[in-house]
Amino acid sequence: MQTNISQLNPIKGIEIGTTCAGIKQTEKEDLTLFSIAPNSTCAAVFTNNAFCAAPVIVAKQHLESQNPQFLLINSGNANAGTGEQGLQDALKSCESVAQQGKYTKEAVLPFSTGVIGQTLPIEKIQAAVPMAFKNLNAQAWDKAANAIMTTDLVPKGASQQLQLQGKTVTITGIAKGSGMIKPDMATLLVFLATDAEIPQTLLQTCLKQAVDQSFNRITVDSDTSTNDACVLAATGQSGVAINDTTQVDFAQFQQALTDICIYLAQAVVKDGEGATKFITIQVEQGQTEQECVDVAYTIAHSPLVKTAFFASDANWGRILAAVGRAGIENLEINAIQIYLDEVCIVENGGVAANYTEEQGTQVMSQKEITIRVLLNRGEQQTRVWTCDFSYDYVKINAEYRT
Amino acid sequence: MQTNISQLNPIKGIEIGTTCAGIKQTEKEDLTLFSIAPNSTCAAVFTNNAFCAAPVIVAKQHLESQNPQFLLINSGNANAGTGEQGLQDALKSCESVAQQGKYTKEAVLPFSTGVIGQTLPIEKIQAAVPMAFKNLNAQAWDKAANAIMTTDLVPKGASQQLQLQGKTVTITGIAKGSGMIKPDMATLLVFLATDAEIPQTLLQTCLKQAVDQSFNRITVDSDTSTNDACVLAATGQSGVAINDTTQVDFAQFQQALTDICIYLAQAVVKDGEGATKFITIQVEQGQTEQECVDVAYTIAHSPLVKTAFFASDANWGRILAAVGRAGIENLEINAIQIYLDEVCIVENGGVAANYTEEQGTQVMSQKEITIRVLLNRGEQQTRVWTCDFSYDYVKINAEYRT
Repeated sequence: MQTNISQLNPIKGIEIGTTCAGIKQTEKEDLTLFSIAPNSTCAAVFTNNAFCAAPVIVAKQHLESQNPQFLLINSGNANAGTGEQGLQDALKSCESVAQQGKYTKEAVLPFSTGVIGQTLPIEKIQAAVPMAFKNLNAQAWDKAANAIMTTDLVPKGASQQLQLQGKTVTITGIAKGSGMIKPDMATLLVFLATDAEIPQTLLQTCLKQAVDQSFNRITVDSDTSTNDACVLAATGQSGVAINDTTQVDFAQFQQALTDICIYLAQAVVKDGEGATKFITIQVEQGQTEQECVDVAYTIAHSPLVKTAFFASDANWGRILAAVGRAGIENLEINAIQIYLDEVCIVENGGVAANYTEEQGTQVMSQKEITIRVLLNRGEQQTRVWTCDFSYDYVKINAEYRT
Repeated sequence: MQTNISQLNPIKGIEIGTTCAGIKQTEKEDLTLFSIAPNSTCAAVFTNNAFCAAPVIVAKQHLESQNPQFLLINSGNANAGTGEQGLQDALKSCESVAQQGKYTKEAVLPFSTGVIGQTLPIEKIQAAVPMAFKNLNAQAWDKAANAIMTTDLVPKGASQQLQLQGKTVTITGIAKGSGMIKPDMATLLVFLATDAEIPQTLLQTCLKQAVDQSFNRITVDSDTSTNDACVLAATGQSGVAINDTTQVDFAQFQQALTDICIYLAQAVVKDGEGATKFITIQVEQGQTEQECVDVAYTIAHSPLVKTAFFASDANWGRILAAVGRAGIENLEINAIQIYLDEVCIVENGGVAANYTEEQGTQVMSQKEITIRVLLNRGEQQTRVWTCDFSYDYVKINAEYRT
């Protein structure tokens, strides 16, 4: 997998133009235009937050009416909690693109990320769209990865090439996200494209499956954004067609797509606001996958667990307490084992017999740590990724609007 | 209500002895003994955390076998996650009290609070119990309120007197708690007593009702403790008997008990780890009380909302996003109104028409703030109390064991 942001593979049929519309207070680029070749298909998943943002509402409607030709993304302003005005602004931003490209506004999907509850500076966007068109080129994935950032510290992108049917298929994607991260069915902002040819329904299935194992398994702070969206476009210009899930190539394509999504999802957690540690929570031997997810997220959301990780304190009692309050019925606490990496910390309802504080402290001092919880009551499992909770998380979010 | 900790009313039939057993690293008192007169009744609720601590398991068993004569509480060590050894230690601590008082160990309920996962220093407790007996007296509620503290900054107690049946009935209670606070059916450690005469079943009903409106409506950090317990003893020595819920005095007694519990619950939140603000979240016009509770706790647990309160930032977008992700089906977002105290901040799916940042900032700069969410879809409501999320929360919990 190629994860060097300056060397992401372009996708035949996708061009990207970025520019500075002046929405952010800095002079950084904040407007990104994706142009998608005709006859491409497009799949997308969006936030389940009931207060979803105006661009999410508009993007869903436009996606139902036709295949999109353009994606327009602004950072610096989320256009969320902006009521009827926000909807009008999102539609106007689509119109400004459609006019330049001589399409209808329904051919454009809008995306916004940034501060919630401020009116979108629509004139600035309208004025900047021609420059975004002028800048369109196939190589600008790295520029886009930068232009969609808000509190992110690093741009996030990944790319992979497969040999299918004797030809090269490429998948490339970028993501932004750092706070308000607990995706629900969709996530943050993620833009993926491939030059494989895939019917829309199948593309949606592929995307959903990849997202469920990646962006739907991460959390920074348990807050689900109003603007989460993840889009996957398939241009077909590699000449490789994937038409159904039984096709021999399908599994390879799905795996590559999922791997990219997992990489990007993990990159979001590693760039989590104030994060100093990357934590994998693996819950095994559950009766259902859902109970594994419940246990994993209860640990992942516990401020006490997260501050202990920040302090490199092997305070396994807090992990144990989180497992205990996850709401699992008939949990046999004496049957549970908990590991920090390879070190067994909990068994028989208490601290493991051979455990020493030195072992725990040694694991906790690492930058990347895996918590494994063995429930000993079934065959199901899941993994969730999260980060620790630091002074800087409080600082970043206390000062966000000042 | 009397809330001056040094002037709590004693309860006829209750004596309290405190001492320093040396469990805490400081020289503060850390062992508390309650002696309950014969023929008293006793009610209790305990944590629903599946990993409940050894003393909770023992206290539940002993409570089933007979009316307790003694409560023994140590702070500094939670005796949780200590397996079979922990159970043996809890039983030994009961025995050390029973021997002194010439009772069986089942007459003693043990309680522990402090660090999870370290073996209880049982010899220190056994050695200190005689001094606790020696110190028994009716006036020591304030000493007990201090001796049960861990990370608490202030002792918490309240007392109330009622005139019932021409006589004076007194209710007095103390509580400890500051972190790992999201009680579930029970809470932290709370010890209440009254000199009314109340049958055990009715006493349990009274306690459950009071707790549901107080300790079960607060959160500091969403973490439910392994050691939560709340006990109410009724000595009957006032000569006032309350025998059923239809009795005219019952409502008065219940209200006084609930008021004390609400006062103590709020005192726990105000003393929440790192707390600088006290926040009341009132959710009204729900279809069910549960959906009001879900919305209220989603707001109360949001790290983004809590850090915004810490910063006195009227970031109403974060409150709106929390309401949106609370999982309420068919939520009509345009029908919802959100207020900060008397200032309407959200209506028609966005910022309220007449809202100004100055109004929001003015409310947010207060020490105590009420968020009101009007769901506009029913008649049910609830209130939840919480605090903000500060640098000091991270500091306290990162350094807890060092």
